[in-house]
Amino acid sequence: MPYHRIRPLLFSPVKFKILQKLKKEIVVSGEEIAKSVKISRSGVWKWIKALRKEGYVIKGSTKKGYFFAGSPDRLFPEEIYKPKMRRFGKNIYFFKKVSSTMDIAKELAQKKVPEGTIVIAEKQLSGRGRLGREWVSPPGGIYFSVILYPKIPLMDVPLINLMASTVVAESIKELYKLKPRTKWPNDVLIGEKKVCGILIELACEPDRIKWVVLGIGINANTDRRFINKIENSTSIKLELKKKISVVELFNSVLEKLNREYRQLNHGRFRKILSKWKNLSSTLKKRVKIITPEGEIKGTAIDVSTRGALLVKLKDNKIKEVYAGDCIHLKKVGRAY
Amino acid sequence: MPYHRIRPLLFSPVKFKILQKLKKEIVVSGEEIAKSVKISRSGVWKWIKALRKEGYVIKGSTKKGYFFAGSPDRLFPEEIYKPKMRRFGKNIYFFKKVSSTMDIAKELAQKKVPEGTIVIAEKQLSGRGRLGREWVSPPGGIYFSVILYPKIPLMDVPLINLMASTVVAESIKELYKLKPRTKWPNDVLIGEKKVCGILIELACEPDRIKWVVLGIGINANTDRRFINKIENSTSIKLELKKKISVVELFNSVLEKLNREYRQLNHGRFRKILSKWKNLSSTLKKRVKIITPEGEIKGTAIDVSTRGALLVKLKDNKIKEVYAGDCIHLKKVGRAY
Repeated sequence: MPYHRIRPLLFSPVKFKILQKLKKEIVVSGEEIAKSVKISRSGVWKWIKALRKEGYVIKGSTKKGYFFAGSPDRLFPEEIYKPKMRRFGKNIYFFKKVSSTMDIAKELAQKKVPEGTIVIAEKQLSGRGRLGREWVSPPGGIYFSVILYPKIPLMDVPLINLMASTVVAESIKELYKLKPRTKWPNDVLIGEKKVCGILIELACEPDRIKWVVLGIGINANTDRRFINKIENSTSIKLELKKKISVVELFNSVLEKLNREYRQLNHGRFRKILSKWKNLSSTLKKRVKIITPEGEIKGTAIDVSTRGALLVKLKDNKIKEVYAGDCIHLKKVGRAY
Repeated sequence: MPYHRIRPLLFSPVKFKILQKLKKEIVVSGEEIAKSVKISRSGVWKWIKALRKEGYVIKGSTKKGYFFAGSPDRLFPEEIYKPKMRRFGKNIYFFKKVSSTMDIAKELAQKKVPEGTIVIAEKQLSGRGRLGREWVSPPGGIYFSVILYPKIPLMDVPLINLMASTVVAESIKELYKLKPRTKWPNDVLIGEKKVCGILIELACEPDRIKWVVLGIGINANTDRRFINKIENSTSIKLELKKKISVVELFNSVLEKLNREYRQLNHGRFRKILSKWKNLSSTLKKRVKIITPEGEIKGTAIDVSTRGALLVKLKDNKIKEVYAGDCIHLKKVGRAY
């Protein structure tokens, strides 16, 4: 496995405490840091050097005292660590680059790591999308996978897709006042352009889910030159015409995921379904859906309580579509 | 992995040819075997010794000629090898004992071995049933797993359960004139006692099955002293009061699986569904089903085209049950 050669960065309690201290105080001496974190003063100096190398802007010196002048806005475990959250953000595997966060997360799931373990990468060398397709992962994007052990029936797995896209859309809406829309089954659009894709892989028996790996890719600060290469895509940076904080966006998504997943896992899916519907770009549209069983054309009128798309066909029959590639054709005048 | 220390027996073309020659001729000299199989005469002698050690009864000597007087009725790859079948029985991993055929088959599936690859064991040290339960695997039983890459929708996976139980029931019926019945979702009964259990594990995305491992355990020649330890069980030997040929039974099951799976994979599931219904012990019975979503009580009236059990509840509503533990309560007078 190639990634074994690329070591993940795991959460460092010392780094976390030093950063906390630096971010809290206006000026702090090396001695104060050493005392509060319980390491030697030369240890502090080594950490400051390492932090600067990672992109943290730390002004001053041991004698004059240090002050924090800026973070590199990178998704280091210490930036996204959430000790208070029940599930998500306690175990984090951060990679500067990696083959695919999905592959690593699946191996970790097999090994039964705790629920909510996150694999995050700044760059994926062979990122994957649905159906084994490539997911282009240029710098500036957020690419991560979360390991879940949901207690829901197998048939309800599509709800995880809807939950994840709702959460990402809500975060983008709240933080940037953009108008993101959810697309069935698992995208987030701005306008009709894709800003986020979601991928689910799972292992199961017909009546028991063993694990689910939820993968999320967000075009956050992705530059125009990369976006232009991907059909029908956009990035938040492109829409806003300015860079965003990936740490802020990631933390918002993670917090919402933590909350909504707990609801879903307790069988309370109505709220998330109604949120998805309110954000939906697919409903009330003419759609073409390519499924393993064939092509379906009709009007998307609703989603079922299991996350299936209800499509009204030519003959007015309603077809329940569980999965497939969905192509938006045109908006129809009214809901059915 | 412990089983790496236990090497599988793979198909040996030389052993296959020697056995074919021995089984076809009344008496055959070492020289004739050597010539036809294209090995040395001392090679023939070594093979004869090895075959005798495995339990083959081969009378005579190189000089007088050999004659075949009986096989050990063990599921060696050469006994079940099916060169003519499209899928099943071309790649066989045979273990005298193994942790669990499921575990090995799943590892092989990850490695994308050809469809229809079979893992078979005479004894499982930690055989598994549904929901991670133990599957007791005493000697005399048939325990195997088959690797499949079906092109059916995820929702149709329960049909594989119904197909497998139908196939086993049909083989038992044809070969031994017993009256096996299928039990929803994945058992075969004789009377109300279990003679076969089926297990499915899979890896997938919501709209693509990556692989399915189908596990089948049949109480074939299992002795009373073992059967008595398992609640509500029986074996074919116990029912017939005589030993059966496990090779004959296995080959019958495999041939039917090969045929029915091809049908299922082409979307032709009506025939297998109707066969399952005809053999069903569950339909027309009062049932209690324990599912991850709760307990359901009612009368089993039909199965859906996706293999879900249709249960008529107290209030006459029909509930579609996709998976769960099914307990037969009592027969009701009439079908609904």
